[in-house]
Amino acid sequence: MTRSDLLSVADLGREGIVEVLRLADSFAEVSERPMPKVPALRGRTVATVFFESSTRTRLSFEAAAKRLSADTMTFTPATSSLTKGESMRDTVETLDAMGVDAMVVRHASAGAPAQVARWVRASVVNAGDGQHEHPTQALLDCFTLREAIAAREGRAPADDLSGLRIAIVGDVRHSRVARSGVLAYRALGARVVLVAPPTLLPPDTSGWGVETAVDLDEVLGSVDVVYLLRLQVERIRECLLPSLHEYAERFGLTRDRARRLAPEVLVMHPGPMVRGLEIDAEVASSARSLVTRQVHNGVAVRMAVLFRLLAGGRAGAAGASGEGHGAPGAGGVAEAGQ
Amino acid sequence: MTRSDLLSVADLGREGIVEVLRLADSFAEVSERPMPKVPALRGRTVATVFFESSTRTRLSFEAAAKRLSADTMTFTPATSSLTKGESMRDTVETLDAMGVDAMVVRHASAGAPAQVARWVRASVVNAGDGQHEHPTQALLDCFTLREAIAAREGRAPADDLSGLRIAIVGDVRHSRVARSGVLAYRALGARVVLVAPPTLLPPDTSGWGVETAVDLDEVLGSVDVVYLLRLQVERIRECLLPSLHEYAERFGLTRDRARRLAPEVLVMHPGPMVRGLEIDAEVASSARSLVTRQVHNGVAVRMAVLFRLLAGGRAGAAGASGEGHGAPGAGGVAEAGQ
Amino acid sequence: MTRSDLLSVADLGREGIVEVLRLADSFAEVSERPMPKVPALRGRTVATVFFESSTRTRLSFEAAAKRLSADTMTFTPATSSLTKGESMRDTVETLDAMGVDAMVVRHASAGAPAQVARWVRASVVNAGDGQHEHPTQALLDCFTLREAIAAREGRAPADDLSGLRIAIVGDVRHSRVARSGVLAYRALGARVVLVAPPTLLPPDTSGWGVETAVDLDEVLGSVDVVYLLRLQVERIRECLLPSLHEYAERFGLTRDRARRLAPEVLVMHPGPMVRGLEIDAEVASSARSLVTRQVHNGVAVRMAVLFRLLAGGRAGAAGASGEGHGAPGAGGVAEAGQ
Repeated sequence: MTRSDLLSVADLGREGIVEVLRLADSFAEVSERPMPKVPALRGRTVATVFFESSTRTRLSFEAAAKRLSADTMTFTPATSSLTKGESMRDTVETLDAMGVDAMVVRHASAGAPAQVARWVRASVVNAGDGQHEHPTQALLDCFTLREAIAAREGRAPADDLSGLRIAIVGDVRHSRVARSGVLAYRALGARVVLVAPPTLLPPDTSGWGVETAVDLDEVLGSVDVVYLLRLQVERIRECLLPSLHEYAERFGLTRDRARRLAPEVLVMHPGPMVRGLEIDAEVASSARSLVTRQVHNGVAVRMAVLFRLLAGGRAGAAGASGEGHGAPGAGGVAEAGQ
Repeated sequence: MTRSDLLSVADLGREGIVEVLRLADSFAEVSERPMPKVPALRGRTVATVFFESSTRTRLSFEAAAKRLSADTMTFTPATSSLTKGESMRDTVETLDAMGVDAMVVRHASAGAPAQVARWVRASVVNAGDGQHEHPTQALLDCFTLREAIAAREGRAPADDLSGLRIAIVGDVRHSRVARSGVLAYRALGARVVLVAPPTLLPPDTSGWGVETAVDLDEVLGSVDVVYLLRLQVERIRECLLPSLHEYAERFGLTRDRARRLAPEVLVMHPGPMVRGLEIDAEVASSARSLVTRQVHNGVAVRMAVLFRLLAGGRAGAAGASGEGHGAPGAGGVAEAGQ
Repeated sequence: MTRSDLLSVADLGREGIVEVLRLADSFAEVSERPMPKVPALRGRTVATVFFESSTRTRLSFEAAAKRLSADTMTFTPATSSLTKGESMRDTVETLDAMGVDAMVVRHASAGAPAQVARWVRASVVNAGDGQHEHPTQALLDCFTLREAIAAREGRAPADDLSGLRIAIVGDVRHSRVARSGVLAYRALGARVVLVAPPTLLPPDTSGWGVETAVDLDEVLGSVDVVYLLRLQVERIRECLLPSLHEYAERFGLTRDRARRLAPEVLVMHPGPMVRGLEIDAEVASSARSLVTRQVHNGVAVRMAVLFRLLAGGRAGAAGASGEGHGAPGAGGVAEAGQ
């Protein structure tokens, strides 16, 4: 088995996305058990290698690894030799030589995880690289949407999102969440409209297969999902926005705007939210908000991603099977509990 | 089973305190075994969420969780999104959504853990909130006193501390250790005298059920325990104290003062000690000092607290029993080793 | 069984070194298994106590502890009470009282781990103390050399390095790696030549049993191993070196110099490397470079060190054997997998 990575949603294609979502169904079921662990990755080591800090993503991956019974290693530059001038390459090659099986990499520069993948033997998961991609966020967002719709319609989750129109609202230009999201939603058949002030739209979206809009209120009447992006206050300093107040007025999901939404319209946000700016605090906690489910489902989806990359046998240990950590199919996972 | 928390010693009452102490007896026995682990909380996740740094408390809780076979997650603001402006609420709601079973919360503000408990589904343990409370410190102090007296009298530990008179010495006004301690000692029948310069006594102790004194030497002849509090050098800056030197002279347990104590008088300190200020270095290491036992017993007492909150079945997973992490009574724990 | 430590290579002597290397052979074999874990130290706790930051050494010890199924605790001053003025003594006594079985200590001051060993009951491993020693680095270097030579000669590893001449190049004066290395290589019979500008040679090496040289090119024709040390840029500020450029010219293993080496000459570096200064980037990745194997073997060697210190029964728990964590001999380890 060759080493595999998850660097972009494009690596997966529609088929790969569906495979992850179905695996995640099994792991979501595991997570509801009194003993929410499976021995699937016992003996494997998953390292989180975050050159940019992030509570939720790092802890979510670590929780996923532990529920699969993997060991975890945490690398953060603050407590490391990077202060002594050690390069990113040295860091990841060192972890690799120690026998780490997967590296979950976050970095402020687009392409850094892909570069890491060229250096190491371990599987690499992109946990956010600059303004490029954040594939597990897109996967957990698809999983959450699929779950919410199934619950509403009282049926098992379907892998097709066609028929849905999703508005991605805010700083699309600088957003890795938007980039990965567009790829994933479109692969599953949904239509996407990007809504932002012109300064925060990507300069050229001709190849994205999406619509764009600069007026949120015009769009809200015709969408099924409002996905709000995080706004970095840097955008003010960079003169891309006049003021936070004006942004909230025009692009925030205020209580007023939420009131005008059809009851079945769903609201999402990748977190952490700035309540009162991108989204009103009450709207964020309302029944239509999937924010908590997004975080909750992140663990099962990341279990699916790690399992898919690692369960097929240890890189470098050909024929690895043996002592209880073989690679059950998605069906087998559900039986693998202990 | 409803979710439960440990926010204040008052939550426990005398009965709850005694229950924890007896559970801790079992876990202290576990800790002496060649294999000092029990599978009691396998599959549960305990997160330490420290908004204020503390080596000893955080590591003690993590050691306790690991000896119960729980998984641990460590959140510290330094390596987190708080630098990006994420709120405490977002942080704990995120951890909660990931399926954490208990959060051990330390915060510089009184009441923060209680606030967290209103937001989350997980059990919350107050690991120190501002100048309010530090209940597990009080419990481990009771456990340690009870153990020392039993050892001296050559009998099994008794749950009653009546007959004891305990001096709590130092910055009582700003001390959460003192607040929790007074509640616990009094619940078990001991008498307490608070000893401090007037500026460091609470403005009104009429409801505390304690005596107060401003002269340590007057008190030392009539107490069984001298409990020294940590002094923050901030108190000088705040003009509550003239100088560290004068404080050490008047309220420190110097070698001279220790020599005048009756041989059976016990000395305690919550740590970390500033030797030569609150307590002389030699006195801190002398036979009458329980400081090391306090730290040692902290692990067993925290095992008891976590076990009591979590072993009764997983919140949200009604009827959870099954695979080996049921809730043995205190007696059952001792058999649960593997 | 009395407590034992690893503070210096001299603690081991030739016999102890050979014992560690042979144990490490077993653990290297474990590391290649599909399930690279053994239950040898289940229930034991290994704390890394790094007062000076280091990614590779800390993570390598933690990986070693986890492969032995020990629990780990991580103390780093950044997230600790040292900011509140807690002393090193308080820190290690606290960890000790919590029941830690081994402390892996790194400190900027020579002798700090030996001091810690006088304060605590736990076994202490020196993970680098100032300019004094770094014994596990020397052990993993011996293991890696022994492995490379065995592979080249198509035979099992021999414990004797006599016949080898090793050049240690660079800032020997300030290097704990050089100090521990000289002791270990000489104990196994190798000859050592220290190569550095006069300002970076130790003032007096008369007791070291080594040769010294100030011209790298004169030495390269007659050595079997070139071991390059890390150069700290501080040496420029301290006026011990004229410039980094001149250092690289005279003492770096440039591509030119590497081309003139006999094909069987091996190259080593403790990492992290400053490519282009101590060693050319291409040379560092060439076939003769053992740098990656050094990191890789570090885990197995540290497993051997921890196993040797801890597997004989728990300190304070005389006669500890029982539940599956007994102390198999080196042969038994290989069978201990699960």
